Amino acid sequence: MTIIVFGNSTSPYTRIVYYVLKELGLSYEMIQPSSYEEIKTPEYLATKHPFGRLPYLDDDGFHIYESRAIARYLINKYQGTKTSTVLIPSDVQKAALIEQFISIETSYYNQPLSKLITQLISMKRQGKEPDLKIVDEAREELDKVLDVYEKLLEGKDYLAGEFSLADILHIPLTFYAFRAGEGDLWNKRPNVSRWWKNITERESWKDIVTKK
Amino acid sequence: MTIIVFGNSTSPYTRIVYYVLKELGLSYEMIQPSSYEEIKTPEYLATKHPFGRLPYLDDDGFHIYESRAIARYLINKYQGTKTSTVLIPSDVQKAALIEQFISIETSYYNQPLSKLITQLISMKRQGKEPDLKIVDEAREELDKVLDVYEKLLEGKDYLAGEFSLADILHIPLTFYAFRAGEGDLWNKRPNVSRWWKNITERESWKDIVTKK
Ligand SMILES: N[C@@H](CCC(=O)N[C@@H](CS)C(=O)NCC(=O)O)C(=O)O
Ligand SMILES: N[C@@H](CCC(=O)N[C@@H](CS)C(=O)NCC(=O)O)C(=O)O
Repeated sequence: MTIIVFGNSTSPYTRIVYYVLKELGLSYEMIQPSSYEEIKTPEYLATKHPFGRLPYLDDDGFHIYESRAIARYLINKYQGTKTSTVLIPSDVQKAALIEQFISIETSYYNQPLSKLITQLISMKRQGKEPDLKIVDEAREELDKVLDVYEKLLEGKDYLAGEFSLADILHIPLTFYAFRAGEGDLWNKRPNVSRWWKNITERESWKDIVTKK
Repeated sequence: MTIIVFGNSTSPYTRIVYYVLKELGLSYEMIQPSSYEEIKTPEYLATKHPFGRLPYLDDDGFHIYESRAIARYLINKYQGTKTSTVLIPSDVQKAALIEQFISIETSYYNQPLSKLITQLISMKRQGKEPDLKIVDEAREELDKVLDVYEKLLEGKDYLAGEFSLADILHIPLTFYAFRAGEGDLWNKRPNVSRWWKNITERESWKDIVTKK
């Protein structure tokens, strides 16, 4: 069995895949693209990822792309075989609560966070000034969303009580918000702040960010 | 067993839930909110949906919100009990391909489509003029995405070959794009157009749109 991850070790989406692999106790090989152009060639689009992105995974010849699909594939296939970590439980009701948080991330959390990061990180990289009006709006929206998280996290270590795929999917973008100096949005809320600590202090994540 | 769907029969997200229920052969009761304000009350936020949205589902006392989470819950619990429709197969590789398309929808399809619909439908409803620059950009982006779909749908009736949850999740927003007069984006591509016909001509969907 050889699992190959084609990705970029600092890419938020690749990191989702690494995090899942490590929690499940799977070993893997990392391959990095030689250049940005490589993921836009006709050959790459035709055989690796039709939208020209990374990561993709190759598991003994089975090819799969999109970090969330890769994560679910790995869980379905390998969960419980090497470690006791459960990222999606078999109990139907418990799984439903995790799916609820996965959808909350996509529907409410991700959008203002992406806006903030685009302005504070991507624009800067391109040598452009961030649009402060958009930054303020995104912060305000995120503030409201995190107020709800603060309530939902009352008395809990992780979103659904126990650690799960829902927590992992929140990591990569949030990590960049901290990098951009916006950590206070999380830190000023006791429950949210405890949750963030719990996810980022797991060995798997520490491994990922320190090794790079 | 009583399944109650609290939602709005013309809401795209409620319709995802109805579609899944019908495909699985489950009967349910529909409850509609009495007013928009009802889903923003402190009581609704505290006990029904913390982000003030619909739909939610109550299955014999088990409460769950977010259409995608509801859909997965129903599939996990009831698939195969009343009909032979398989929305997520147990085969790990087949399921992975469906997850890939679910993520493609969220990552590339949904965003330009939402932009288009916000401009052409939501703005209009509020009595505002659509921003034609945004409309053009969204159409252009969608054109590129649908070019990829055209390739991915070559020789197939449904996204992953057989009908699945991935197809259902594409329906509700696309339906509104057709309503807004943008159907040509789909119709001018033979594979995409065949796919769209296949999903919308299933009895479950016809039931939903004709009954309302
Ligand atoms: N929805 C994809 C997103 C992947 C993605 O956008 N990856 C970035 C690297 S972090 C990329 O490939 N960017 C290249 C580009 O956007 O052209 C996933 O979840 O895997
Ligand atoms: N992510 C939610 C979205 C639900 C949603 O936005 N529903 C609309 C009705 S179609 C709603 O409740 N709108 C009220 C509002 O946005 O204030 C889901 O998938 O269930």
